[in-house]
Amino acid sequence: MISTIDTVLLRIADNELQVLLWQRPQDSRAYPDAWALPGGWVSEEQDQTLELATCRILEQKAGLKPDYIEQVATIGNRTRDPDGWSMTVLHLALIRFSCSESTQTNTRWISVDAVRNKALTLAFDHAELLDKALERLSTKARYSTLPLYLAEQELKLPELQRIYEVVLGNPLHKRAFRERILSAEVLEDTGIRIQGRGSPATIYRYQPDCAVRLFDRMMQGAMGESISE
Amino acid sequence: MISTIDTVLLRIADNELQVLLWQRPQDSRAYPDAWALPGGWVSEEQDQTLELATCRILEQKAGLKPDYIEQVATIGNRTRDPDGWSMTVLHLALIRFSCSESTQTNTRWISVDAVRNKALTLAFDHAELLDKALERLSTKARYSTLPLYLAEQELKLPELQRIYEVVLGNPLHKRAFRERILSAEVLEDTGIRIQGRGSPATIYRYQPDCAVRLFDRMMQGAMGESISE
Repeated sequence: MISTIDTVLLRIADNELQVLLWQRPQDSRAYPDAWALPGGWVSEEQDQTLELATCRILEQKAGLKPDYIEQVATIGNRTRDPDGWSMTVLHLALIRFSCSESTQTNTRWISVDAVRNKALTLAFDHAELLDKALERLSTKARYSTLPLYLAEQELKLPELQRIYEVVLGNPLHKRAFRERILSAEVLEDTGIRIQGRGSPATIYRYQPDCAVRLFDRMMQGAMGESISE
Repeated sequence: MISTIDTVLLRIADNELQVLLWQRPQDSRAYPDAWALPGGWVSEEQDQTLELATCRILEQKAGLKPDYIEQVATIGNRTRDPDGWSMTVLHLALIRFSCSESTQTNTRWISVDAVRNKALTLAFDHAELLDKALERLSTKARYSTLPLYLAEQELKLPELQRIYEVVLGNPLHKRAFRERILSAEVLEDTGIRIQGRGSPATIYRYQPDCAVRLFDRMMQGAMGESISE
């Protein structure tokens, strides 16, 4: 049985979701030169646990250590790998833009929409794995603070709202969004106010090791017709 | 690498959650005679996919076909099996009481509380696996219709409320509970009314293949101080 780990690592840049891809070597047995999710085999010698294996592989392939990683699902069947029965433990990882520069040369960030529109074809069943991880993210964005891990640690609420809107693919009402985020009690007011055109904007901060909190009210109740300011 | 599947199969009986356990054979290499979650190895010959393997193993070990099965997590490390590096794909399955009689002699339903209170010790890390699956169920009960799969297909709302209360470990306000469940639109009014002490109770029905729906408002807003009627 082939047992691997694959990770969908996401960031927000230019107001869009981007996924980190890794180019397979020219001499790969299957899918040479193709773009793929960063992944690899569990090593019985090197890895104590599946979690440590995931971090090791992500660091080796992408040179990155995201603050947030979660398992999405394990996909196993007879057809996904030309070499036979294969299982992969799929992960979703989020990273803030300022920490997302990969140290590896054979990686690139690409817009999720470009992959979905087949502008680029991924190896194996990785396009399906990407869809599964994106679905997990957008579902959790409806009822939790998870998308916070795509934001910088010091942020203004309109920036965070924009991240939620990108993840949900939907505009949100400003006041309803604020109510949900602030009542989740993960943002700390820094006391800093930035004067813009209108009233001063508050700078908030979150801790990178903060737990993902659930909202009392789902985000879909905050979805509106037009983008808020 | 040892790759297995384990399932936490739950039902509600006598107003408590019960888990189906399977007794390991006397000649087992590890944990002989011990009680364990029903589980087994993926068979590259017999199983096309992980999903089919899960159903096959549950049917062989427990003789049961629940309407609802979902993956919870894959747990893998060097210490969980005395034979070395081992991975298990953990599943949560729900079954309604009327379909829950196992055809196998080496199985039994036992109260989840009894396992948690160590009245019975499970093999391997199965007590931890049980906790993980229970946490998934109680989290999802806060924002979705998932516990419906523990109910009979024809039901009264107070019965369903009691199921939620058992799963959440908390009493719920009758009116707030009803608002959430009915607005999720998974229950069909059969038109049948049962006359009891007070006003007649409506009999609802759900389809066993209905999707799990998310609520607009989380269930914790419905949590009260005292058990409703």
